Amino acid sequence: MARLTGTGRAEAFSDGVFAIVITLLIFNVQSPRSGPGELLDDLVRQWPAYLGYATSFIYVGVIWLNHHALFERISNIDKPLNIANLGLLLTTAFLPFPTAVLADALRADDDANLHIAIALYALVAGLMCASWQIIFAYLDGHPELLERGIEPDFFRREKIRALLGVAGYAIAGAIGPFAPELLPSLIFLVLPIFYGVTSHHGLTRGSAPTMN
Amino acid sequence: MARLTGTGRAEAFSDGVFAIVITLLIFNVQSPRSGPGELLDDLVRQWPAYLGYATSFIYVGVIWLNHHALFERISNIDKPLNIANLGLLLTTAFLPFPTAVLADALRADDDANLHIAIALYALVAGLMCASWQIIFAYLDGHPELLERGIEPDFFRREKIRALLGVAGYAIAGAIGPFAPELLPSLIFLVLPIFYGVTSHHGLTRGSAPTMN
Amino acid sequence: MARLTGTGRAEAFSDGVFAIVITLLIFNVQSPRSGPGELLDDLVRQWPAYLGYATSFIYVGVIWLNHHALFERISNIDKPLNIANLGLLLTTAFLPFPTAVLADALRADDDANLHIAIALYALVAGLMCASWQIIFAYLDGHPELLERGIEPDFFRREKIRALLGVAGYAIAGAIGPFAPELLPSLIFLVLPIFYGVTSHHGLTRGSAPTMN
Amino acid sequence: MARLTGTGRAEAFSDGVFAIVITLLIFNVQSPRSGPGELLDDLVRQWPAYLGYATSFIYVGVIWLNHHALFERISNIDKPLNIANLGLLLTTAFLPFPTAVLADALRADDDANLHIAIALYALVAGLMCASWQIIFAYLDGHPELLERGIEPDFFRREKIRALLGVAGYAIAGAIGPFAPELLPSLIFLVLPIFYGVTSHHGLTRGSAPTMN
Repeated sequence: MARLTGTGRAEAFSDGVFAIVITLLIFNVQSPRSGPGELLDDLVRQWPAYLGYATSFIYVGVIWLNHHALFERISNIDKPLNIANLGLLLTTAFLPFPTAVLADALRADDDANLHIAIALYALVAGLMCASWQIIFAYLDGHPELLERGIEPDFFRREKIRALLGVAGYAIAGAIGPFAPELLPSLIFLVLPIFYGVTSHHGLTRGSAPTMN
Repeated sequence: MARLTGTGRAEAFSDGVFAIVITLLIFNVQSPRSGPGELLDDLVRQWPAYLGYATSFIYVGVIWLNHHALFERISNIDKPLNIANLGLLLTTAFLPFPTAVLADALRADDDANLHIAIALYALVAGLMCASWQIIFAYLDGHPELLERGIEPDFFRREKIRALLGVAGYAIAGAIGPFAPELLPSLIFLVLPIFYGVTSHHGLTRGSAPTMN
Repeated sequence: MARLTGTGRAEAFSDGVFAIVITLLIFNVQSPRSGPGELLDDLVRQWPAYLGYATSFIYVGVIWLNHHALFERISNIDKPLNIANLGLLLTTAFLPFPTAVLADALRADDDANLHIAIALYALVAGLMCASWQIIFAYLDGHPELLERGIEPDFFRREKIRALLGVAGYAIAGAIGPFAPELLPSLIFLVLPIFYGVTSHHGLTRGSAPTMN
Repeated sequence: MARLTGTGRAEAFSDGVFAIVITLLIFNVQSPRSGPGELLDDLVRQWPAYLGYATSFIYVGVIWLNHHALFERISNIDKPLNIANLGLLLTTAFLPFPTAVLADALRADDDANLHIAIALYALVAGLMCASWQIIFAYLDGHPELLERGIEPDFFRREKIRALLGVAGYAIAGAIGPFAPELLPSLIFLVLPIFYGVTSHHGLTRGSAPTMN
């Protein structure tokens, strides 16, 4: 009988949420409904919306990569792990909101609002990193849920990476009011790329050798 | 041949609906498009939208947990069960509407409207609990659809839990006009958490031992 | 190796489209953002939106049931069948548009607009029935794509059912301008229920006996 | 153990994105909320929205067909391939934006805006073709990721097809300001149909013979 078992349904449900979040981000990028001859200017003027789209798309894409790499190492799922996974999905699904607030603030070009929007984005993104920590901490104490033959330092490295994320977003939020506006936005763009580069696939199931 | 069979497609379709509902809830939380310097106040003022998001996210997340636990115990699906499952999906997919109405009423702070909004939320949430009852009642009479080796009191306990939900939401709706507004909202938040805590995973397919 | 093959990916993709359409229908039901004390009246006044939601939810749910029953009988998929399936998805994904137009027309209570809206809904729903015909016609000429052991009259009955749908929607659209407005709406509601009742599951894969 | 492995999760995630994009396109087609007796005229007047819906639906449908055909030939996925796939999803998920801009420009009937909208659509569609090139180039250098027994000229033909797309969209964008508006729109409609017709399914997994 070939049907989804064990982690299968949690993976499918998470994939659904990730796919929807990553796809709906485009709806923060609106057709400007311009007056005659004004379309090009209007399209250029909403560059923060494109930047927000790219930043959040890369972010969610990297979360998916990491989620994929993590669940390749999990063989069974129990209720606490399912709930921790729902916590990760909650913060991920919340991301379009601070993305829209940040894009609005960048477009309106008001310094006070921009600092608040940066802090909000940093807060939500930092909470998302923290929700990874909960998953790693739980798995640390429940080796019976894991696949056999995982690299011994996998979880140590993952916890350090998630901690770096919390720290990075805390810094970005804290320096928001003092630094030039470009610096936090740069951190928002660089952090997910760092996660993408340092993510490690590899333990393929079955007999296939490691590819990456 | 490895393709989805039996309950596989009903589970995948349900997961799709749950994933979309849980993800779209964020679109009731709008970027406030504030005037200069007003963003922080505006963000704080829309706290009912965050509360509504959290309440409904937890609710749908718990429905997914319970749906997951239920379908682990179902081995085959027939047309009546598919239709009963569609009934559950109908009430679940309807949830963003009373959530938005309730958040609007909390924000506008008008007592008469708030009582109606509470009653509407209680009605839809109660119907959802009732749609579980239909599924359990049907499965009770069709043991040939179930996996072997289910805990003998599983369905009895599940029916009691769903009945408690119908009762809880009926009470929340009924006391809405008389109680302080916080009480029904508290019931809305507490009931899904109760369902999450009392949900029982455990019967893993295959040879793996029970984990939870 | 357990991954989606053959019809698996076409089924997963179709399930995704069906799940999204069926879930997004709720977004035609808007929170009325009422003035003080007006919420109950406003909620009652938008009854056509609820009717539209129920009608289209039942419609898409029944399409899913029939799609499920059909693909249980298909073992392989080729390019023409994939394209015919995309045609079915195109008309299904279009459904929220005539649903919204019909709900708007019912709410505005303007006879001329209502007749147009009824005709539009009938046109799209009829095209959807026609897109089933294309699938059945193609499968009729390609028995090598089918599972073994299908009931000999399955496709004959299915073609008759789809034809009845085309006819039913044509009639509903044609009588729209002359009949009282309730009659076409009734046909819109009754036709999918007829399809649901006459849908036949049953050929379960593997060794399990037929359940329905 | 029957759960998604290897390419399974990347396929499921991509299917989710494709399903959502293809379904959400309908939300660029709005109910016109017409005055009394004006519905028919209003429905006719927004023909560019229907054209945009059809064009982009066909486009995404053909991308899905090609993605399906490609991943049938991939047996393992590593991080660079996952990232290249995310690049393809990024351009695909961006498509509803230029579709909406083009539909708005066609409706407003302003020549200057229309040329910009055509150039924007051509740019995004061309980038999507280019993102296929990256996938093919990577697979060319990593035969260990591929299924055995692939037609020897599969990737050569695919690269030529993707290159034709880049060229076609570049031409459509370049001639936008000079040609009558219908010509670029025609190219937008014809290019995906060309891709659909020349797509080649065939290598089915398992022992089933090639069907197409």
